[in-house]
Amino acid sequence: MNRDVRITAIRITPVAFRDGPLLNAAGIHEPWALRAIVEVETSDGRVGLAETYGDAPMLAVLEQAREHVLGLSPFALNTMEERLKAAIRPAPGAVEYTLAPGSHAAKNAAKAISAFEVAMLDLQGQAIGAPIVDLLGGAVRPQVAYSAYLFFKYAEHHGKPYAPDPWGEGLSPQQIVAQARRMVDRYGFQSIKLKGGVFEPRHEIDCIRALREAFPKMPLRLDPNANWSLATSKRAAEELDELLEYYEDPCPGLEGMGELARHTRLPLATNMVVTSFEDFRRNVELRGAQVILSDHHYWGGLRATQQLARMCALWGLGMSMHSNSHLGISLMAMTHVAAAIPNLSYACDTHYPWQDEDLVRGGRIAFEQGAVRVPAAPGLGVELDRAALARLHEQYLACGIRNRDDLRQMQKYDPAFTGVSPRF
Amino acid sequence: MNRDVRITAIRITPVAFRDGPLLNAAGIHEPWALRAIVEVETSDGRVGLAETYGDAPMLAVLEQAREHVLGLSPFALNTMEERLKAAIRPAPGAVEYTLAPGSHAAKNAAKAISAFEVAMLDLQGQAIGAPIVDLLGGAVRPQVAYSAYLFFKYAEHHGKPYAPDPWGEGLSPQQIVAQARRMVDRYGFQSIKLKGGVFEPRHEIDCIRALREAFPKMPLRLDPNANWSLATSKRAAEELDELLEYYEDPCPGLEGMGELARHTRLPLATNMVVTSFEDFRRNVELRGAQVILSDHHYWGGLRATQQLARMCALWGLGMSMHSNSHLGISLMAMTHVAAAIPNLSYACDTHYPWQDEDLVRGGRIAFEQGAVRVPAAPGLGVELDRAALARLHEQYLACGIRNRDDLRQMQKYDPAFTGVSPRF
Repeated sequence: MNRDVRITAIRITPVAFRDGPLLNAAGIHEPWALRAIVEVETSDGRVGLAETYGDAPMLAVLEQAREHVLGLSPFALNTMEERLKAAIRPAPGAVEYTLAPGSHAAKNAAKAISAFEVAMLDLQGQAIGAPIVDLLGGAVRPQVAYSAYLFFKYAEHHGKPYAPDPWGEGLSPQQIVAQARRMVDRYGFQSIKLKGGVFEPRHEIDCIRALREAFPKMPLRLDPNANWSLATSKRAAEELDELLEYYEDPCPGLEGMGELARHTRLPLATNMVVTSFEDFRRNVELRGAQVILSDHHYWGGLRATQQLARMCALWGLGMSMHSNSHLGISLMAMTHVAAAIPNLSYACDTHYPWQDEDLVRGGRIAFEQGAVRVPAAPGLGVELDRAALARLHEQYLACGIRNRDDLRQMQKYDPAFTGVSPRF
Repeated sequence: MNRDVRITAIRITPVAFRDGPLLNAAGIHEPWALRAIVEVETSDGRVGLAETYGDAPMLAVLEQAREHVLGLSPFALNTMEERLKAAIRPAPGAVEYTLAPGSHAAKNAAKAISAFEVAMLDLQGQAIGAPIVDLLGGAVRPQVAYSAYLFFKYAEHHGKPYAPDPWGEGLSPQQIVAQARRMVDRYGFQSIKLKGGVFEPRHEIDCIRALREAFPKMPLRLDPNANWSLATSKRAAEELDELLEYYEDPCPGLEGMGELARHTRLPLATNMVVTSFEDFRRNVELRGAQVILSDHHYWGGLRATQQLARMCALWGLGMSMHSNSHLGISLMAMTHVAAAIPNLSYACDTHYPWQDEDLVRGGRIAFEQGAVRVPAAPGLGVELDRAALARLHEQYLACGIRNRDDLRQMQKYDPAFTGVSPRF
């Protein structure tokens, strides 16, 4: 290994890809989801990859980071972190969504650190001929299990921007079961999550009941996205106690979750009230959540996710993994870090089945029995398909979306929709 | 890098080396200090090194670990950790000293993990041509500062087992200042620690006052080794407030330290009441210590020490580093991890100046202005001098000491010495 190698160029390419009309507490997914592809190039001609949020404020944050990363060795992760912690400031015009921790400006440094850490680890792995997981202490499992991530959805986007997806409408319990069946048949998932917070709790619990009947042995999770009041969450818990492996963010706030925790046997999971190490501290005191949903994109990278895992083990908390709409580069980073964490004991969330595009060479990444095999190839184990990158960048330029806005999109269907939360 | 490389042999060699007649709360150092040298050999003929405790229980623990490490890839740190956590049990006949966390049987797994982690990181670094610090995220400083570690001491060991050391007697304030002068002149240290808990607090505070006069700008620390009562510690704090950068383990127990913390402006440092991650949890609740003295030998390795550092940063605690009598392999491991930790903001402790032997090739490691340069050579950056290893092993066989026992040694000088603590 040549220790004189330095980072000489950084390319940030925003991309857009088709995304389903998936309903959530904030509204509905827009027809195009945004990501940024980060390429970090070294003096010896290698390119390290990362994928992160592609909204305009995040692009500005990545631009702020550029000068602090250029010139570093790809092994200088600690220096990179220190520099970005000191340098990254909230980008002007930042748009934050309460329900989407990835949009929080307070996480800007962590988000930028994560993107550059993944790309630098990819470079390290390439330089030494080892997969990233080896740089994280090695795999404790040969593959990483993901869950079937179900959504209430419409059959088509407002305005029909492109042909409808093959998943059809997903509103009734029967349709949700059919969606689950299709996902399990195609990917082999062995646990199921339903994103809720969309309809009356009665309806969503009926969907969970229908899933329980159709999949008697499958672990189930429900995520009302903090769209239920504490009282509703408590009432629902009585029924859900028998049905779920964990109850994800039913009501808002750490205090609310803490109060709810005293009324249910279910472990409460969260990617909303514990989304930073500072939140972890508060949670230790308030005992709100028992399962932390990690996400390397905003927790500060793969090493920070390992740090979180060790802290979860120490405080007796469970750990699972959150996702946003993403492509194969993120899926690979998630797989490497999940493989290195002994106590990542639940199947991870992924939106990947909802996408039908990707920009990694060789096409979309395969699932076997619901799991992704941990790559043995150097670095991340994926390379860019440059034609696909160019195509997805063209889509970005053409789609006109610059900040995810599920609320405004929902108002196209229902002008009276306010998105005020908790709704139920 | 060849991913098929496996660990094929483990050699554990106990060694003994000359150690000064250094006084502490438990008694006095014996004339020979024990360590174990761990050599981990791979199928491609490399040898990774580590140094750890050499007392009989620790040798038994390392033997227990052997079968769980053989056959692993040197990159399989996470699997090694999981296996040793599951497999290591308190060794029969374990001898524990309250004042020496390195002797605690509850830390057996962490101690074994640390030894094998360092040796495996050495192998990783050698295999890829990078210093260990690069595998820890890279150096944030080019050298690591150590402190002058002063001891009350006699001029000679009981029974005169070998010629007296050149440091002379160290009992009076004048002698302690002379000891400090010699240490600063020879090594260039820029901060000073005095191991106390030996004489009446009045005398030890007078020594600190003499050091302050002789070295007006040098940060000073006093470590009474929990040999002062809470009341004594409070009284002494009034005077020490103006004199110290931190006040290390004056009184016993986390609760005592918590109570003392409310009576002094000084940060309270510890390597006695917070010596494991479980203790860290308790300290977060009780707020006893404000500066954690890390020690990779019993905290579970270099990565665990980084974990501790991130947790210290999160909870707003300072971080420094503890040491025991050690040789150059440990000094190098300490230097690599300290170089990778941004918030290791105090000069580290080291007993190294008290030794006049070593078993690393090229002889003893140099200090420049009180600091050790972070090696750029692959792995740890030190190799074994096999003739020296054989000599120190012969000393081990001949010295007859199998468990450190400062109390019994002290009773050779003073048969009435009980070691009961707190004494003052």
